Amino acid sequence: MAQVIEVTDPADPRLDDFRDLSRADRRPDRPGGRGLVIAEGVIVVRRLLASPYPVRALLGIRRRVEELADELAGIDAPAYVASAEVMADAVGFHLNRGILAAADRAPAPDPGRLAENARTLAVLEGVGDHENLGALFRNAAALGVDGVLLGPGCSDPLYRRSVRVSMGHVLAVPFAELEPWPEGLKWLRDSGFRVLALTPAADAVPLSEAVRADERVAVLLGSEGPGLTDEAIAAADVAARIPMSGAVDSLNVATAAAVAFYALAERGTGGTARQG
Amino acid sequence: MAQVIEVTDPADPRLDDFRDLSRADRRPDRPGGRGLVIAEGVIVVRRLLASPYPVRALLGIRRRVEELADELAGIDAPAYVASAEVMADAVGFHLNRGILAAADRAPAPDPGRLAENARTLAVLEGVGDHENLGALFRNAAALGVDGVLLGPGCSDPLYRRSVRVSMGHVLAVPFAELEPWPEGLKWLRDSGFRVLALTPAADAVPLSEAVRADERVAVLLGSEGPGLTDEAIAAADVAARIPMSGAVDSLNVATAAAVAFYALAERGTGGTARQG
Repeated sequence: MAQVIEVTDPADPRLDDFRDLSRADRRPDRPGGRGLVIAEGVIVVRRLLASPYPVRALLGIRRRVEELADELAGIDAPAYVASAEVMADAVGFHLNRGILAAADRAPAPDPGRLAENARTLAVLEGVGDHENLGALFRNAAALGVDGVLLGPGCSDPLYRRSVRVSMGHVLAVPFAELEPWPEGLKWLRDSGFRVLALTPAADAVPLSEAVRADERVAVLLGSEGPGLTDEAIAAADVAARIPMSGAVDSLNVATAAAVAFYALAERGTGGTARQG
Repeated sequence: MAQVIEVTDPADPRLDDFRDLSRADRRPDRPGGRGLVIAEGVIVVRRLLASPYPVRALLGIRRRVEELADELAGIDAPAYVASAEVMADAVGFHLNRGILAAADRAPAPDPGRLAENARTLAVLEGVGDHENLGALFRNAAALGVDGVLLGPGCSDPLYRRSVRVSMGHVLAVPFAELEPWPEGLKWLRDSGFRVLALTPAADAVPLSEAVRADERVAVLLGSEGPGLTDEAIAAADVAARIPMSGAVDSLNVATAAAVAFYALAERGTGGTARQG
């Protein structure tokens, strides 16, 4: 059970995990130069407490810490209670959400392990924008994607901004790097996945025609501007597009991903023709 | 054809449309509001030039104005060319995108006019967040929605932030206010639309079962937090949900809208079972 400890000095070294928060997710002194996992707000902290990431500490105003009493009962980490002012002093800016938690990273699963029991995977190439990445993980969690494989050019899903935009769902969806590239896509195909490259290209097959009911699928998504590389598309089984109105070039990558995840989640349910 | 005019004095009164930009987009009935439509960046300015909104003026660095030479040939409004410094001085902050355009608002279409030739409409209740609203319009434009009806609590789609997030597509999708509320929904049903309320409620029908191939549909969307009011859901023909994984409460409203728009765009195309 978490020990609740009152803190009144913003310089207290026990708050060091939360200091200089805008840089806490990049820590050159830590393995891989990657920092702590930071969760902000009751909802996201709750998801962190339910995740496999080992929680190091919480820091919050009393009211917020008390909201998490049930979850804290199962956690062996200190929960520091401070005033909003002490928190702001320690963190470096005022926090609207009133509670933070810090966790260590967990070792990324092996891609083989991740793929083993998956029916639907997302594979990303060049998704470098933290907000898009966070939103994409939220959509993956909501729409039944079992895991995410990161190709080259993707940013770190555990950056604070991604964690926040994902509403903490990035902590629930397993992810791993897929290397080498694009050969990793061949490995995925050999592992039994049909690799479906999502692209706005006019000669791609409409998404609804590209999805088959009875197969394991890895949907390959590129960054919003340049899209997927030719090599990645060539390494896929099929290029699929979301049918779009003429004047609109493309959807945001997280939105396009949501549409694809939805279409994949519907496969095997009988399609759109059913009537309940 | 647009007249290109060099401006070197940031106080030049001809640049007044672009002054105090953070308030220029407010509706004229609001403090400081001038009700202008402001487009930022070459892509969005291009969409403004192609829209029904009457362009008043452009302001940009030479390179950006020159990029628009073709489109400006058909426009009868001045294009002011200035240095980046003069632009920043006039506008009040530095603009990365290097070009702006200002237009007058156009009279909103009558809802009846808007519905007349529409097959798919979106109806919004309480979508007050400018970014969500802009993203939703972008998705509506991409996925074949013919128009948007605004119920109570929605913000103004022509706010600068919405225009920007929509990538200018808000300028291409007609919208109108739907009053009174929720009686307007009954009017929509009487006009031949099946009104489909999108909600995460567990007792709602899965989206794929709620969509029928051969009908006109108005999809009703609520704000991300509280969702649709009970009155709005009660006034709809059917409550539909996007099937979601247990732990995830809901999608962002613009993302949920994209999934619904996609499912509606697919109606009548034969569903997910076709193979090309």
